Amino acid sequence: MDSDARLHDLLAGLPRLLPGHVWLVGAGPGDAGYLTLHAVSALRQADVIVHDALIDEGVPALARPEAWLEPAGKRGHQPSAEQGAISARLVELAGQGLRVVRLKGGDPFMFGRAGEEMLALAEAGIPFRIVSGVTAGLAGPAAALIPPTLRGVNQAVIFATGHGAGDGPRIDFAALAATGQPLVIYMAMHQLDTIAADIVAGGLAPATPAAVIASATLPGEQVLISRLDRVADDARSAGIAAPAMVVIGGVVAMRERILGLIASGGAE
Amino acid sequence: MDSDARLHDLLAGLPRLLPGHVWLVGAGPGDAGYLTLHAVSALRQADVIVHDALIDEGVPALARPEAWLEPAGKRGHQPSAEQGAISARLVELAGQGLRVVRLKGGDPFMFGRAGEEMLALAEAGIPFRIVSGVTAGLAGPAAALIPPTLRGVNQAVIFATGHGAGDGPRIDFAALAATGQPLVIYMAMHQLDTIAADIVAGGLAPATPAAVIASATLPGEQVLISRLDRVADDARSAGIAAPAMVVIGGVVAMRERILGLIASGGAE
Repeated sequence: MDSDARLHDLLAGLPRLLPGHVWLVGAGPGDAGYLTLHAVSALRQADVIVHDALIDEGVPALARPEAWLEPAGKRGHQPSAEQGAISARLVELAGQGLRVVRLKGGDPFMFGRAGEEMLALAEAGIPFRIVSGVTAGLAGPAAALIPPTLRGVNQAVIFATGHGAGDGPRIDFAALAATGQPLVIYMAMHQLDTIAADIVAGGLAPATPAAVIASATLPGEQVLISRLDRVADDARSAGIAAPAMVVIGGVVAMRERILGLIASGGAE
Repeated sequence: MDSDARLHDLLAGLPRLLPGHVWLVGAGPGDAGYLTLHAVSALRQADVIVHDALIDEGVPALARPEAWLEPAGKRGHQPSAEQGAISARLVELAGQGLRVVRLKGGDPFMFGRAGEEMLALAEAGIPFRIVSGVTAGLAGPAAALIPPTLRGVNQAVIFATGHGAGDGPRIDFAALAATGQPLVIYMAMHQLDTIAADIVAGGLAPATPAAVIASATLPGEQVLISRLDRVADDARSAGIAAPAMVVIGGVVAMRERILGLIASGGAE
């Protein structure tokens, strides 16, 4: 049996997406190569794919020709209202007996609001499944050669979202910083000045290394290395826009160390 | 073009693993369905796959018939010495002009020691690539219907490893708990009594919900729901052994809520 046949068999053995069911599927950080086989299988079975704004061009290619893609589009500044509409739409589509895939960037449970959608589906009696994905909080740092965990250096890492204003309790970045563990911040760009100031107030040195990683794993990938007290200014000067991840902590220094070694030895 | 042909094209367009190069590849939480397309592509190109103890039976099936699998086996209580030997072996294999895949459970950068291996490869002038994977810290909670992040409830989540004794600085679980954010703890079983006591000392209520998830995504998957002050005893009574994830925080309560709704409505 050749390699393609074995892959075909593996895919054929994965769970079936049944009519009237909804799968909440993580698409990974951007590059279609980070789709899991479960995600590929979901896309190949779906009647309808309700997707976020950012999906790779490789994704629609995997869907059946008869399937349709529907953008979930959260517009303007009413995310909560829009989220209710998305959940209601998933219930409606499943209620029509369709095989529904809700495709989300990264991992569905990592600041992806799958929790709310899962709850709405359970309340409506719609069978569902969570298909975990590669979160941008890991793929972004990896693309930048920054390991969020390093043996002998740290035994914890904190993932946070910067997108908190007016949306639930304001996150206490000072308290997170006080733990001394590296911070990986999603959607940090809009409030990076405030976040960095809070983290300094929490006790991290202003000179703590900080990285901004934009469009990780995609052709337009950008990596900016700075320090905590300058990272917001430096990102502005470099013209880096959302979406981007920010990593703060000593682990960021690994990038320059690795790049220095590569420059004297050679790597990909 | 049919669905298999499109998948074949997508895989064919992914980066080539060249002779003398090493890819550090995340295999995901266990179930081969959580392999990414990059991981599949790596396995199909490798001459040698140096793997951790726990790999799914679907993984060897994807390797070329001419490839060989080599267990990296960290034995006994000398993990650091063994790690040096693994890194040296990767350098040696690449030096022979082989296409080398280092296959790790979960995500290679999430308590997976890829940082050390990357450094060793860079020092030896061996070209390498990091292939991020689905971490057990996300797939485990997802399998248990526990969202690590919930809008309006928390805007950060802490991933930590319980496997810290005698291995770098002792982790301060009390400080992590003081942030009030959910904790997802890898390799927590051996020291769960101590960890839970530290977390209570850090200010989390003894009645805080706690979950233990063993063999997530695999046929032997087990989920135990308890509370912080009883979780170690309850896990012992239930005979749950490592490897297992522990989740601590209010988000754990979502599982019972979802299961209650499903019981009255029906889901997968």
